[in-house]
Amino acid sequence: MKGYVQVYTGNGKGKTTAALGLSIRAAGAGLNVFIAQFLKMGDYSEITALKRFSDLITIEQYGLGKFIKGKPSDEDMDAAQKGLKRIKDILSVNEHQVVILEEANVAVSCGLIQKDDLLNIIKTKPENVELVITGRGAISEIIEIADLVTEMKEIKHYYQKGVRARVGIEK
Amino acid sequence: MKGYVQVYTGNGKGKTTAALGLSIRAAGAGLNVFIAQFLKMGDYSEITALKRFSDLITIEQYGLGKFIKGKPSDEDMDAAQKGLKRIKDILSVNEHQVVILEEANVAVSCGLIQKDDLLNIIKTKPENVELVITGRGAISEIIEIADLVTEMKEIKHYYQKGVRARVGIEK
Repeated sequence: MKGYVQVYTGNGKGKTTAALGLSIRAAGAGLNVFIAQFLKMGDYSEITALKRFSDLITIEQYGLGKFIKGKPSDEDMDAAQKGLKRIKDILSVNEHQVVILEEANVAVSCGLIQKDDLLNIIKTKPENVELVITGRGAISEIIEIADLVTEMKEIKHYYQKGVRARVGIEK
Repeated sequence: MKGYVQVYTGNGKGKTTAALGLSIRAAGAGLNVFIAQFLKMGDYSEITALKRFSDLITIEQYGLGKFIKGKPSDEDMDAAQKGLKRIKDILSVNEHQVVILEEANVAVSCGLIQKDDLLNIIKTKPENVELVITGRGAISEIIEIADLVTEMKEIKHYYQKGVRARVGIEK
């Protein structure tokens, strides 16, 4: 099966959640899935849930769990670079039919990884791999090269009412 | 935990997939999830995948698998009405903390269910229930009453290149 490049961007809720749903659907069809999370670190509810799919879905985190905004530290940069190397290895071994790069757009915009690194991953991926890139602020070169782009547009959000992230719903 | 009303609408890919991801995250936190699919019938990859969560996630289908567009038949209408009744029962028993009404917006716009039925479900849901409504073409009353609305906006889609729905990716 030929694989395509999907991008989920925009400021609304649903990007990471859609990638999670996609990984489950793929696993339901017996596909192998690799999820690389650039910014997260920690035991989110989805990590717990995905343990039930440990035969089909591998999830790795390259965030240090402390970098949120501003300039990334050398440690943050090292972690992201190790992540990049790992993703390239995974793609070259080519045992996963679906590869998800979570928050990769944000990793580019905050300088954790270079846009050319991400573009290079897209251009050199094995033809059979479905590559999914999430994160707000996808740059124009990524949108240009992608086969499918959905903008998750916030129409309204309960965060504006002061609701905080909840276990099982947001985290 | 107080529950809110989330709506995923728009013409882009990712609405059903986000709802699927949300159900998995909720199950990861030990929440009970009920998924009502209004238009679908059949063994999609997500149905297979969700079997691994049969202790926490219940999924039911109220489509007949043949109605796509045009005017629904009496059989389609009956199936949707049975679905509506079932959803009301589920909400009144209140054992599920997350209830997902898949393609409910489309069910309203094609006349399978009445908009007042859907609005009534929203208005009378138990306070602790997180209610998630998907489907393109959400009507203004639904957007008005919801706490969170994301529009999945199609920027580009590989269907335009002639790619057909693929097992494990779209179905």
